[in-house]
Amino acid sequence: MATQPVLISGRWRAGRATGVFRADNPRTKEPLPDEYPISSWTDCTEALDSAVDAAETLRSVAPERIALFLERFAERIEANKEAFVEMAHAETGLPKSPRLADGELPRTTNQLRQAAAAAREGSWALPTIDSAANIRSILGPIGPVCVFGPNNFPFAFGSCSGGDFAAAIAAGCPVIGKANSSHPGTTRLFAVEALQALGEYGLPLSTVQLIYRTSHVDGERLVSDPRTGAIGYTGSRHAGLKLKAVADEVGKPIYLELSSVNPVVILPGALKERRDAIVQEFTSSCLMGTGQFCTNPGLLVLIDGPETNDFLTKAAAGFQAAPVGTLLSRGVESSLAESIRKLVAAGAKPLVGNQLGGGAGYSFANTLLRVDGRKFLDQAEAFQTEAFGNASLVVVADHVEQAAMILQRLEGNLTGCVYSDTRGEDDEIYERLVPILRQRVGRLLNDKMPTGVAVSAAMNHGGPFPATGHPGFTAVGIPASIRRFGALHCYDGVRAHRLPTALQDRNPTGQTWRLIDGQWSQADVAKK
Amino acid sequence: MATQPVLISGRWRAGRATGVFRADNPRTKEPLPDEYPISSWTDCTEALDSAVDAAETLRSVAPERIALFLERFAERIEANKEAFVEMAHAETGLPKSPRLADGELPRTTNQLRQAAAAAREGSWALPTIDSAANIRSILGPIGPVCVFGPNNFPFAFGSCSGGDFAAAIAAGCPVIGKANSSHPGTTRLFAVEALQALGEYGLPLSTVQLIYRTSHVDGERLVSDPRTGAIGYTGSRHAGLKLKAVADEVGKPIYLELSSVNPVVILPGALKERRDAIVQEFTSSCLMGTGQFCTNPGLLVLIDGPETNDFLTKAAAGFQAAPVGTLLSRGVESSLAESIRKLVAAGAKPLVGNQLGGGAGYSFANTLLRVDGRKFLDQAEAFQTEAFGNASLVVVADHVEQAAMILQRLEGNLTGCVYSDTRGEDDEIYERLVPILRQRVGRLLNDKMPTGVAVSAAMNHGGPFPATGHPGFTAVGIPASIRRFGALHCYDGVRAHRLPTALQDRNPTGQTWRLIDGQWSQADVAKK
Repeated sequence: MATQPVLISGRWRAGRATGVFRADNPRTKEPLPDEYPISSWTDCTEALDSAVDAAETLRSVAPERIALFLERFAERIEANKEAFVEMAHAETGLPKSPRLADGELPRTTNQLRQAAAAAREGSWALPTIDSAANIRSILGPIGPVCVFGPNNFPFAFGSCSGGDFAAAIAAGCPVIGKANSSHPGTTRLFAVEALQALGEYGLPLSTVQLIYRTSHVDGERLVSDPRTGAIGYTGSRHAGLKLKAVADEVGKPIYLELSSVNPVVILPGALKERRDAIVQEFTSSCLMGTGQFCTNPGLLVLIDGPETNDFLTKAAAGFQAAPVGTLLSRGVESSLAESIRKLVAAGAKPLVGNQLGGGAGYSFANTLLRVDGRKFLDQAEAFQTEAFGNASLVVVADHVEQAAMILQRLEGNLTGCVYSDTRGEDDEIYERLVPILRQRVGRLLNDKMPTGVAVSAAMNHGGPFPATGHPGFTAVGIPASIRRFGALHCYDGVRAHRLPTALQDRNPTGQTWRLIDGQWSQADVAKK
Repeated sequence: MATQPVLISGRWRAGRATGVFRADNPRTKEPLPDEYPISSWTDCTEALDSAVDAAETLRSVAPERIALFLERFAERIEANKEAFVEMAHAETGLPKSPRLADGELPRTTNQLRQAAAAAREGSWALPTIDSAANIRSILGPIGPVCVFGPNNFPFAFGSCSGGDFAAAIAAGCPVIGKANSSHPGTTRLFAVEALQALGEYGLPLSTVQLIYRTSHVDGERLVSDPRTGAIGYTGSRHAGLKLKAVADEVGKPIYLELSSVNPVVILPGALKERRDAIVQEFTSSCLMGTGQFCTNPGLLVLIDGPETNDFLTKAAAGFQAAPVGTLLSRGVESSLAESIRKLVAAGAKPLVGNQLGGGAGYSFANTLLRVDGRKFLDQAEAFQTEAFGNASLVVVADHVEQAAMILQRLEGNLTGCVYSDTRGEDDEIYERLVPILRQRVGRLLNDKMPTGVAVSAAMNHGGPFPATGHPGFTAVGIPASIRRFGALHCYDGVRAHRLPTALQDRNPTGQTWRLIDGQWSQADVAKK
């Protein structure tokens, strides 16, 4: 049983390790065979040096080659699809099909291809030209990006394959991937293919590097190191805020995606009109992927009325009847149990579930909790404890104004949904509640659950703190997610031949949108 | 001698004060007659409550009315020009003409009108529409913005008149202005005109509020309060980093513009070609406004050669011959003296100046210092001490590679300039040095000094930490500066009539640029 190598400076080598770890198979609770090194600072600092070199080289690489790399990488992932699905299934317990093979993997390669197209086309960087003053600006690569991937999407948010990775590379930034400790093997497979694809297009081999784990102290050194340009982090709030604190102190942009309870408000008219359909949507959205989505609807807000009890009874029955899925890890299981314990301690009443087990391996019964509006308001913070997994809390408000007060107490969230009657009966309540909700969420939905996160240019997978660290950025959706990894570079009176291609008079692709003298245009700069 | 009132909740009233202060006339070193309150938390919290109300109302105000307000405000400033110029001259010592009356005031009203045009037109918010998925997003107002203005531009960066103010209002955010303590009266005059203009267009009167000073503790509470949406701060690094720390902790976007030494590299060919012209440009850029520009060229890098001594002799003579201007305040005078003391203690040799006085009121002799490259590298941090005022440090590198090492040691700066020979003699050195410089500055200039900051869409008045807090944003230049005060608001499946006007199928102005299905367009969304 060998310890797997790290990928640093373009080659696979033994980690300079302070220890090793193994991931569990969550369905069997048994450790998987491979060992992975816990890297020392020696690995981190070597990776940073190499990333700086790669960043320098990448600055003069044509965007076309970066695009070709991303496309080739996507092809190689598809060609090795079985291996990825097998490994991810073993490490995460997520179903091979449709989830991994037919959902997440195509999403991942699609995302890489969208990033490739954006890199090639160049509009993401908002090239801006003031021809009269000869001042020109563009978002240039911010430097090496450290990506910390989450446990729940081993492909689509993976540190060497996912959204942050694709966005950073498209921006021209090398990536140092820190694997999620629950799926190091999957991440390693991605890095293997990435390295091959880099070689095929002659890109610097240190454009993609991989370590699996570090000490907390070294993780903090990594994100605050002068060589680091920016950080993408998706994961727990606790660890994320620790990294944010050290990154902020030295002014490193850190893009976080932390916790979110994703409030869903169901208005009385909607319940009257289509209660059973909504029960169905809610139940399947809550339990999808065993509830382990960043956008899982963890907080349902109802306004007490004739349908309330029926809704809750049917939802509880749905939770009861649905199979109990496997959780991603021992840590997810214990933190779900702990969160539910806190919610119950605060006064939430379990309608169904609330016990360990029930599924293969790490698992917890599908759990639905209920609390009254008044009680929620008494301990609004405690009742917003995220229960990451197959559990949700229903808050039943006495009336619309109490629902408004509840929404006013919400922390920042990724999403907020409102179901309303299609004939307009709820419109007055909608008008009352939505302005409050709007300010507290990144994405507002009507009449649908938040779990689907389309890779769309208009998507916002972000939101106010503490859902993320800055409400202006999204982790999903191209081109906006790429802009996180750009530094604004202005060229004032710089001689024409020294300008980046995208800022020269001639449109470099004939396709690049540029803001020229106040108008977006794909044309060349007009001759004077 | 009455204490001037604060502007809170739409009316001028006595501050709930913990004390009072007066500003000095820097030319006489005598206190000016008016007293201003040091606000207690009572004032701050009332302003925050009112700002939240104003923010709510503003969300449903048509951008056209915000634009009309900004334009009317600009008109009212122009109509009262004499009073503004008199007051600012008394409080800052800056010359009435051309500086205040013919430079900064027109710049300020121009900036307000550009912000008005951007608000009216709406493209700044990057409205993005995915018509197939019916997902739409736009930057919406982030909430109340606290603006802390600097001492050096009482109009153009003033907390109730300048770039941050104009950008926040254009984004639909109310402003709580914290006057700079060195020119409270000027700020008050702006708030008087703003309140009148708000009334004329029926905007919430709490859209603009003004306090003059708070305790440090209350300032920190203000920026970290849940009601605050974002902060714009221009000023000293020390105070700015304190505010950043508390804002970061609660995830409030804080846009800082802090210190910058603005390196200027003069290559040997340029010196050979046009030494005297460059001496002239350097001297006047350094001493303009008594050196009190954020983009003042505080660090000149030369590569030792036959022209070096001549250049330095002539520059020193220029510094000696130029009149010594008045500094903005006692604090500026003492901190300039202290910075120069530090530079000298580290080993810089004064070529000219290095003594207090020489001008009217607060003043310090025009000072040019010199240090060798090797010595600079030994204490690179100390030699980057910003000497805010009429002083610059010249570093003479032994050779190109040493210059490269010097640039590698630079902190983040707003600007970086390179002068090179027009016939291409310096091109090789340029290629060696500029990639290093590029990553360390927001704006790269060729063959000109950095002091001019055009209000251009392509401007970047920003840069890597610690020049600012995030390298992706600019404090000057519309539309980009407005985007700092936007939160990304996504609408996923939201019914058509509930969408913000700018995201509905019909282009609201016929002029608004929107990214529709991957293409920038001023058209309506095509019917399916």
